Amino acid sequence: MTFDIQVLDHSKAPAIQQRIDQKTKPLGALGQLETLALQLALMQQQQHLQRQAPLLLIFAGDHGINRHQLSIAPSIVTTQMVHNFLSGGAAANCFCRSFAVDLMVVDCGILTDLPAQPGFIKQRLGESTQDFSLQPAMSLEQANSGVQLGYELARSQLNSGYDLLLLGEMGIANTSSAAALLCAATDIPLYSCVGFGTGISPEQYQRKVSLIELALSRPYAKDPVSLLAEFGGFEIAQLTGAILGGASRGCPVVIDGFIVTVAAILACQLDPACRDYLIFAHQGAETGHRAALTQLEASPLLDLSLRLGEGTGAVLAWPLIQAAQSFFNEMASFESAAVTDVVSQP
Amino acid sequence: MTFDIQVLDHSKAPAIQQRIDQKTKPLGALGQLETLALQLALMQQQQHLQRQAPLLLIFAGDHGINRHQLSIAPSIVTTQMVHNFLSGGAAANCFCRSFAVDLMVVDCGILTDLPAQPGFIKQRLGESTQDFSLQPAMSLEQANSGVQLGYELARSQLNSGYDLLLLGEMGIANTSSAAALLCAATDIPLYSCVGFGTGISPEQYQRKVSLIELALSRPYAKDPVSLLAEFGGFEIAQLTGAILGGASRGCPVVIDGFIVTVAAILACQLDPACRDYLIFAHQGAETGHRAALTQLEASPLLDLSLRLGEGTGAVLAWPLIQAAQSFFNEMASFESAAVTDVVSQP
Repeated sequence: MTFDIQVLDHSKAPAIQQRIDQKTKPLGALGQLETLALQLALMQQQQHLQRQAPLLLIFAGDHGINRHQLSIAPSIVTTQMVHNFLSGGAAANCFCRSFAVDLMVVDCGILTDLPAQPGFIKQRLGESTQDFSLQPAMSLEQANSGVQLGYELARSQLNSGYDLLLLGEMGIANTSSAAALLCAATDIPLYSCVGFGTGISPEQYQRKVSLIELALSRPYAKDPVSLLAEFGGFEIAQLTGAILGGASRGCPVVIDGFIVTVAAILACQLDPACRDYLIFAHQGAETGHRAALTQLEASPLLDLSLRLGEGTGAVLAWPLIQAAQSFFNEMASFESAAVTDVVSQP
Repeated sequence: MTFDIQVLDHSKAPAIQQRIDQKTKPLGALGQLETLALQLALMQQQQHLQRQAPLLLIFAGDHGINRHQLSIAPSIVTTQMVHNFLSGGAAANCFCRSFAVDLMVVDCGILTDLPAQPGFIKQRLGESTQDFSLQPAMSLEQANSGVQLGYELARSQLNSGYDLLLLGEMGIANTSSAAALLCAATDIPLYSCVGFGTGISPEQYQRKVSLIELALSRPYAKDPVSLLAEFGGFEIAQLTGAILGGASRGCPVVIDGFIVTVAAILACQLDPACRDYLIFAHQGAETGHRAALTQLEASPLLDLSLRLGEGTGAVLAWPLIQAAQSFFNEMASFESAAVTDVVSQP
């Protein structure tokens, strides 16, 4: 598989940084927003940032491994939450309304085959993955197809007026797949990858660890698509593709929580050029998220102890992206505001 | 001085928390936004939160101690930045425009007496404080008057359509006053209170520490207003009053960076009832900010390594406050969305 991602040209970074440094503020005083503005300007390769139109895509899928009850919820809750997204009642909907972000839900393979409706994209790879503790979660063909579908979906949406992607997910038990993927794709020890997800009991946690250990003990190929086939899930495969698809359009891709961050690791393994297009929204409360972010050398924007998924953290980061754009475009320079240049002078 | 602040009634907290817990999400999965929603609901004492109209007040003042060059900038930059605020070119203006926040600047005593103009409130206590390393920054009358002016200003603005205050400041060298106040008002050691401000040199830093030590070595009364008189500044006195004034109207008061947080400590000493009305926007990069936040047992919303002041952190926190309101008001319950109740069920 190849992905048409342009290596980000950093040659204009010094000129962009100089523009930031001439704003009426002490050097570096806007902290992470300055780094973010530089990244956005490099992506757009210009000195005035275009206002961006954001789209949240929530990828949903079900997980065979949840027959071992690795979540506080039964798998049917994935379907119920997809209904909730489509009727506007979930946290992600509330935040999207607050910040004028459009939202679409992608069925990557949930238990129930729901009828077509506005804002609902069906790209089903099955109706739940297999129990990956015993066998591969899906076939290599399904995994390949998932990455391709996510890639094409992101590209087509970014061809229809949107130019910034926020990525979220919904899938009961998908922290199990994400933990297995993280452990298998990196050198991070299992205990740093597995967490309490939605708030499971110590017994459930122990079962989760044991089943993931069992899965990791069988031989498997180490390339990202094989890992997705081995450990799932349908939504993580499509997220991996969507990240690559967003980057291939040169657009910022905002990464939400643990599961999406693991997809980002796989996407960067498939094509390292995508890394420069990623914005990491937040440090969540799930155990593996910190290790996954460290793996990517990411400095997330928020740290609010979120552990909900759905893209909620990504949508909450959107105002900060707007703020970075606004100071970069609109803030006066020492010269234009006739403020004594406290930065360039000795 | 007495301040008409109602002790916040926490008796409805369990009912409000139950409402939050019945939203379609795992218990506590929205992290700090849940704590924030609870606080907002307690202030409004109702189960549906009113949409709030925010106002940013930037209090500006100059500092006699800057004749020792304790900042990267000369004191005239305070006046220049007030011009910048009034013509819309500062970072605070950019963020206010992005998030539809109104902004007013309060002249508490800057070097230059500027003409009246829209959005500019003159409450001058002088034209710069005295050099507090050698003598009190201002008289006790000035300090008292500053607190009173800030208190009345906040109350009158909150009587004219606004119902949420964001507080910021501008004043070259005011981290020196804030550090001295923090050290004198608490048991925090001086080295945890003094930082590099806008980015001063090691020599300037050493001079800053020595001058503050000198000031702290003379006898002084320990009550908050006496401390303000002793160490300044005009804008910190008015900020202290504004915090109390906001709380007296039962409105949320959003605290920005190091200087405003120190004013919050003094306000809480003057009337501890104000604490429950405060929202702490961010953990900034200035040394004393962490100690000041810890003193108030505050959990700030953002941590972006900001060190600009002007209320920039407070304005960046405003979307998170809106997000907390929106999920509290609009998010479906397990029952209303027909989602299996994964929280109440065993």
